Amino acid sequence: MYVHTPTPAQQEKQSNIRSAFFISDGTAITAETLGKSLLSQFSDVEFDIQVIPYVDTPLLAREAVQRINNAYQSSNLRPLVFDTIVSDDIREIINAADAHNLDIYEGLINRIATEINHKPNPHTGMAHSRVDSDDYKARIDAVHFALDNDDGARTNHYDGADIILIGLSRSGKTPTSLYLALQYGIRAANYPLTEEDLDTSQLPRVLKPYHHKLFGLTIDTERLVRIRQERKAGSRYASLAQCQEEQRAIQAIYSHQKIPSLNVSEMSVEEIATRILQITGLKRRIGV
Amino acid sequence: MYVHTPTPAQQEKQSNIRSAFFISDGTAITAETLGKSLLSQFSDVEFDIQVIPYVDTPLLAREAVQRINNAYQSSNLRPLVFDTIVSDDIREIINAADAHNLDIYEGLINRIATEINHKPNPHTGMAHSRVDSDDYKARIDAVHFALDNDDGARTNHYDGADIILIGLSRSGKTPTSLYLALQYGIRAANYPLTEEDLDTSQLPRVLKPYHHKLFGLTIDTERLVRIRQERKAGSRYASLAQCQEEQRAIQAIYSHQKIPSLNVSEMSVEEIATRILQITGLKRRIGV
Repeated sequence: MYVHTPTPAQQEKQSNIRSAFFISDGTAITAETLGKSLLSQFSDVEFDIQVIPYVDTPLLAREAVQRINNAYQSSNLRPLVFDTIVSDDIREIINAADAHNLDIYEGLINRIATEINHKPNPHTGMAHSRVDSDDYKARIDAVHFALDNDDGARTNHYDGADIILIGLSRSGKTPTSLYLALQYGIRAANYPLTEEDLDTSQLPRVLKPYHHKLFGLTIDTERLVRIRQERKAGSRYASLAQCQEEQRAIQAIYSHQKIPSLNVSEMSVEEIATRILQITGLKRRIGV
Repeated sequence: MYVHTPTPAQQEKQSNIRSAFFISDGTAITAETLGKSLLSQFSDVEFDIQVIPYVDTPLLAREAVQRINNAYQSSNLRPLVFDTIVSDDIREIINAADAHNLDIYEGLINRIATEINHKPNPHTGMAHSRVDSDDYKARIDAVHFALDNDDGARTNHYDGADIILIGLSRSGKTPTSLYLALQYGIRAANYPLTEEDLDTSQLPRVLKPYHHKLFGLTIDTERLVRIRQERKAGSRYASLAQCQEEQRAIQAIYSHQKIPSLNVSEMSVEEIATRILQITGLKRRIGV
């Protein structure tokens, strides 16, 4: 183990925050996703997170090692390393750093190889759909569909929609539509229910033929008020009374029209999207 | 180990494709990202992938076990299970399935706990930024920025852009802008260089003040021709000669104006986005 004797100046600099490195010869998205998920289980510990993608030469690997060793020196805490490096040569260089390397990838790949009795074909960066693949085309088509059908911009393309998200303004419809498109190739339109739409418990005329594609997003009233106050402070639109009235009206529509809905107040975009797939049974167009 | 004696009808149904289950008490995005990345290292093996998110009750866990066991029975191949379940009780139920469980999470969390000498605080679904967080606001603001500034729609908000992607039409600018927004909270505008813009080796007037924010995307000419043929078969716009001319012109602009650029022909959206961060040194607004 490395023994470090810091100078007084270095001692002063010591932050006592442990570094965590997510390192890959590709995008590092896998290392980062897993690493963050694991570190989030230690919610009362602070980590200094550093992502180093595209470490695909011995030179770059040695530079990464230098960064790891520097982090050790300046904090006096042994860094954690999560790497998904495929090449044995590159991985060996990283393994020589003064760090606790969790060696996720190599260990798991070997266990899978043993279980399925099949050798791996090591290669980098196959986790995502490339520009020349059908999956990529499906993603891009879905993204353009979401853009063209955002915020009720058009309503004459709903025949081609996999799902139509409805809800009050700023309830998360747009980012959810785009996430569904980018991650799952799902064609999601979205339509905001405005004050005029909420006067009756009827659906707007343009939505009626697509009842089976509708999915409602809701958020808590106090959050809605806060968001609207940020946009238009002091307006009727942002008043508690107005928000309560709109919330009552939209709940009545969801309930009378039997439209599935989800309260997204406590959710991330990722959770909203995956919950929608789960509730509706909608199938991804890509990925699985 | 489970011993299965299939009936003749079952035998006929056997696909000899091994199932892989990605299971979580949250979105299952972490389990899926890691699992797919690992399985992609066995590129000549086919897997039947099943994602089961939100397994957060014993009942749902037993249903998942049933699905795993059914997969074993119908294929005669022991399924692989990648789970990121936090609760010990739920994980125990899943572990009882007739499967090879790689037990990623528990093993790694225990190793981290030992290394940092700190107990974990087990909880679910903290890997993504919630609706009420600053990170979430940054993402959403970035998504709306990308939408408002897509495809050169507006050019008077470039002061607020972190980056302005330029390139020929359909070179991946829009999905890259949205990915940068959703994943990293980066405000990316995009501007298509059209035939008129390419007449000189000068930048369009609206881009000149933002030279330092420009980043060029390029794709191979034959791919450009193919994409354009799909959109407008037989047109001059889609002809080899026209595409070659535009490619020559845009390369001249990148070169004369010293604009960093990236050939994205072989890349996924994820790779384009992470390469741009690497090349430009642009900092994420969220995530790290």
